[in-house]
Amino acid sequence: MRDKKYVIGIDFGTESGRALLVEVATGREVAIAVHPYAHGVIDETLPGTNVRLEPDWALQDPHDYIEVLRQAVPAVLAQSGVDPADVIGVATDFTACTILPTKADGTPLCFLPEYRNRPHAWVKLWKHHAAQPEANQLNEIAARAGYDFLSRYGGKISSEWLAPKVWQILNEDPAIYAAAERIIEAADWIVWQMTGVERRNLTTAGYKSIWSKQQGYPPKEFFRALDPRLENLVEEKLACTIDGFGTKAGELTAEAAAWTGLRPGTAVAIGHADAHATAPAAGVSEAGRMVMIMGTSNCHMLLSKEDRIVPGMCGCVEDGIIPGFFGYEAGQSCVGDHFAWFMETCAPASYVEEAAARGLSLHELFEAKAAALRPGESGLVALDWWNGNRSVLVDVDLTGMILGMTLATKPEELYRALIEATAYGTRVIIEAFQDNGVPVHEIVASGGLPDRNKLLMQIYADVTGRPLKVAGTKQGGAFGSAMHAAVAAGKAAGGYATIQEAIKAMAWLRDEHYEPNPVATAVYNELFAEYRQLHDYFGRGGNDVMKRLKALKARVLLEE
Amino acid sequence: MRDKKYVIGIDFGTESGRALLVEVATGREVAIAVHPYAHGVIDETLPGTNVRLEPDWALQDPHDYIEVLRQAVPAVLAQSGVDPADVIGVATDFTACTILPTKADGTPLCFLPEYRNRPHAWVKLWKHHAAQPEANQLNEIAARAGYDFLSRYGGKISSEWLAPKVWQILNEDPAIYAAAERIIEAADWIVWQMTGVERRNLTTAGYKSIWSKQQGYPPKEFFRALDPRLENLVEEKLACTIDGFGTKAGELTAEAAAWTGLRPGTAVAIGHADAHATAPAAGVSEAGRMVMIMGTSNCHMLLSKEDRIVPGMCGCVEDGIIPGFFGYEAGQSCVGDHFAWFMETCAPASYVEEAAARGLSLHELFEAKAAALRPGESGLVALDWWNGNRSVLVDVDLTGMILGMTLATKPEELYRALIEATAYGTRVIIEAFQDNGVPVHEIVASGGLPDRNKLLMQIYADVTGRPLKVAGTKQGGAFGSAMHAAVAAGKAAGGYATIQEAIKAMAWLRDEHYEPNPVATAVYNELFAEYRQLHDYFGRGGNDVMKRLKALKARVLLEE
Repeated sequence: MRDKKYVIGIDFGTESGRALLVEVATGREVAIAVHPYAHGVIDETLPGTNVRLEPDWALQDPHDYIEVLRQAVPAVLAQSGVDPADVIGVATDFTACTILPTKADGTPLCFLPEYRNRPHAWVKLWKHHAAQPEANQLNEIAARAGYDFLSRYGGKISSEWLAPKVWQILNEDPAIYAAAERIIEAADWIVWQMTGVERRNLTTAGYKSIWSKQQGYPPKEFFRALDPRLENLVEEKLACTIDGFGTKAGELTAEAAAWTGLRPGTAVAIGHADAHATAPAAGVSEAGRMVMIMGTSNCHMLLSKEDRIVPGMCGCVEDGIIPGFFGYEAGQSCVGDHFAWFMETCAPASYVEEAAARGLSLHELFEAKAAALRPGESGLVALDWWNGNRSVLVDVDLTGMILGMTLATKPEELYRALIEATAYGTRVIIEAFQDNGVPVHEIVASGGLPDRNKLLMQIYADVTGRPLKVAGTKQGGAFGSAMHAAVAAGKAAGGYATIQEAIKAMAWLRDEHYEPNPVATAVYNELFAEYRQLHDYFGRGGNDVMKRLKALKARVLLEE
Repeated sequence: MRDKKYVIGIDFGTESGRALLVEVATGREVAIAVHPYAHGVIDETLPGTNVRLEPDWALQDPHDYIEVLRQAVPAVLAQSGVDPADVIGVATDFTACTILPTKADGTPLCFLPEYRNRPHAWVKLWKHHAAQPEANQLNEIAARAGYDFLSRYGGKISSEWLAPKVWQILNEDPAIYAAAERIIEAADWIVWQMTGVERRNLTTAGYKSIWSKQQGYPPKEFFRALDPRLENLVEEKLACTIDGFGTKAGELTAEAAAWTGLRPGTAVAIGHADAHATAPAAGVSEAGRMVMIMGTSNCHMLLSKEDRIVPGMCGCVEDGIIPGFFGYEAGQSCVGDHFAWFMETCAPASYVEEAAARGLSLHELFEAKAAALRPGESGLVALDWWNGNRSVLVDVDLTGMILGMTLATKPEELYRALIEATAYGTRVIIEAFQDNGVPVHEIVASGGLPDRNKLLMQIYADVTGRPLKVAGTKQGGAFGSAMHAAVAAGKAAGGYATIQEAIKAMAWLRDEHYEPNPVATAVYNELFAEYRQLHDYFGRGGNDVMKRLKALKARVLLEE
């Protein structure tokens, strides 16, 4: 134990933060601690005020992030008994795009009494969706002016990203915009708090702030076209050194050391985004192996030596995932959420009773019943757009569809059709990559779903015709951050020189994996052709009924 | 009470027969008695044998029909205390096409010991679906040879009808075909048993046996083209006097009088079909008012002075519903069944609990929740093809579809979308009539659904933009038969000279009725346009995905 070295990865999620203490030499997970945010997601009233928030708002309190450092880090040290002197580095990853306005010294505006009751002074969480009007206008302006950055982001900038969120601040509370000497990703703000130095990370800059190594941020003219007052946004509030994975941001300050129980001077890595930290945690640092984080939604990450335009991806960022590669990200907006919706909305009482009688969860009962069906047996096909379509159609106004029901259709057939639909959605993404020169040979899954649903994993293998492996760690983000910390600490300190070295020593895959069954794949090829035809008909303008129904619904609700 | 006259209508349904005793002068329903068939629907094993039936078979035992005469008729006499001498007539209506092979004297072949274990000797119930191969072949041959009778039946002869069923007998048990000196609708067989005289009714001949007043049955060449042994089917086994509604078939024999407790010599009306008997019961004997029998499926009946080709109807028969009119029939295969499927397959446990807590049935709870939604609010649209489409697409291989789901979609929204889909299906039928010169001004509903679901009735009024009235009697078939009996008995005996006279005196509509709400109709016009586009895309060859999925399903199940 004496000579062993450790790193700590800290993952800042939507509802809580978690610290993971890992042995550098082996990747052994020694201790974990989770600290829920006291204020969680703020979407009704500003804490300590009567200020109500409008629909689609989602804020957070930066105090909650500091509390994770003060609670979860000491907890893993205490649990493990590891000497802080043996912790050679610490790294963080964060939800993104999650941004906040601060003073020049990093003090969040919402910490200042004069701004405490101003919603725009707080952290805008990734899922703050109230900047959709700004996003729509931005996309129109960028498309009209022919800015080619749109092609790096599937043709559209999301309302979740930095520029629309900043623009919303300016539109709705210009005084806050003026008072904000910096506007910064929480991923970078937390590193600033730990090191005393403002540094920014390449991943959130590239995937969420329209920045690239080649071109930097969009030019002044672009921001001026949005609003003249935004012209100097970059130089006034964003500009900063930008570095990528494996870079040391600085060293732990005395104050941050006191919060965490770690030694002052401990290496702190540059900030990072949670999904992207999962790629090395899944052992992937080469082209052709797609990492798929499977949870409420699916997030796909893929590396390539080539810079390609792949229509409908979420982003392509050089060095954004692993240095030396173009990192491609794609997404499916509705996966685990889909099944949760189904269980709540469609699972009949008789199945709830049967699950109880058999000592199974409802999900387990449905999995067992659906596993007894063969591909094609239900006669059903669905479009998995209950939450819109991210990749490759990039259209939030699409909705779900299911087709093929008869009076003999059983609940488990509907359930299986929803799983299959999400697998077809993944195959559409894989084919988009393949067709544009970014091959996918294999999938490595991470996240919550792979553990919980073997049927789903097999269906994904069968539908995509590709082997599905499963990352060893269950802590994708925190484990990836721990690896990041080991690289940032460097070889001399007992860490690693490169992420590839770190992967070899620390990451692992489970023995269980899923091979495609050729008989099932043959049937799924036929079903996928049906899915593809419906996908294009409803998704590419053949029949815009979904958008018209959504518009009608909005109109009817307005007339209330 | 002394001088009052009565009639009895007897409705032979799928599971039971019911007798209704009605006062001629007023239409007052005096007594009703239901007698369930001892053998119900025979679809597994022939009674008293080990002979197993194949899938899609559905047989009955003619003894069960006689038992209705022996039990239900005496029961209404006993209940009411009416003197049999005051019963001036009796009439029957029957499911159709429900046919049986008999000897020349009317003895069913299945009554004879030598044929008792031969499935083809028994009654083939309307929903015997095992003659589909014969129906397919018949339609091909008729279409190829250009027989214009197809246009009277929406372009296709159903596997439920007489010719395919007879052909199946010949194909599978030629000895039974040879032994069958008559092949007859049960509707006519029961009248034969009551009167001792074989007479046939125009309604089942017209709607189920490809007969018309102008052309009679199809010519010998047609039957020879099916199978040379069928060439003389009509003259050998079918030919007989054919008469329509209001005609007296004969008088009750001594034997039948003994069964029923009625007087020998009581007038007996010509046979009739159950759905068609409902039109006069709903007070309809003029053009432009569509009678809609709403239950597990919808059956639509409409009168016109004009003989038009309306694509996709079930049949057009001169005098088939009311003498002096062309009677049009259309159908929707899945209405009440749809909602039953939904409750069983999709109603979540939390709703079952809520219904119990509020003392409501599950249907009532869903109706209450769905009634709180406005048209267009759910963003959903469905195609009501869970059991294929009868009118106007005449395609059993179409399947259901629902579109527009989001993660916020609630169970009552799905339920309401299914109701709306069946209403759109009705509107498609109405528009087909309208577009082909058969106007529909108003709908008179009958059957089980109108009593049970006010929301559904209002949605039908709103979607069709037409007032929906409700027949007074809950016994559509039996009440219509009672009116039939009053006309067959004739004015001299205390009955009526015409059905119009009988309607004026006996039929009535409820006070409650449903007017279309113009605001709702405007929204439904938009939604119907979406339904129509999807209807044509999936139903008329734009995308045959439903058929391909069904074919794939069949193939996968075969490979088991």
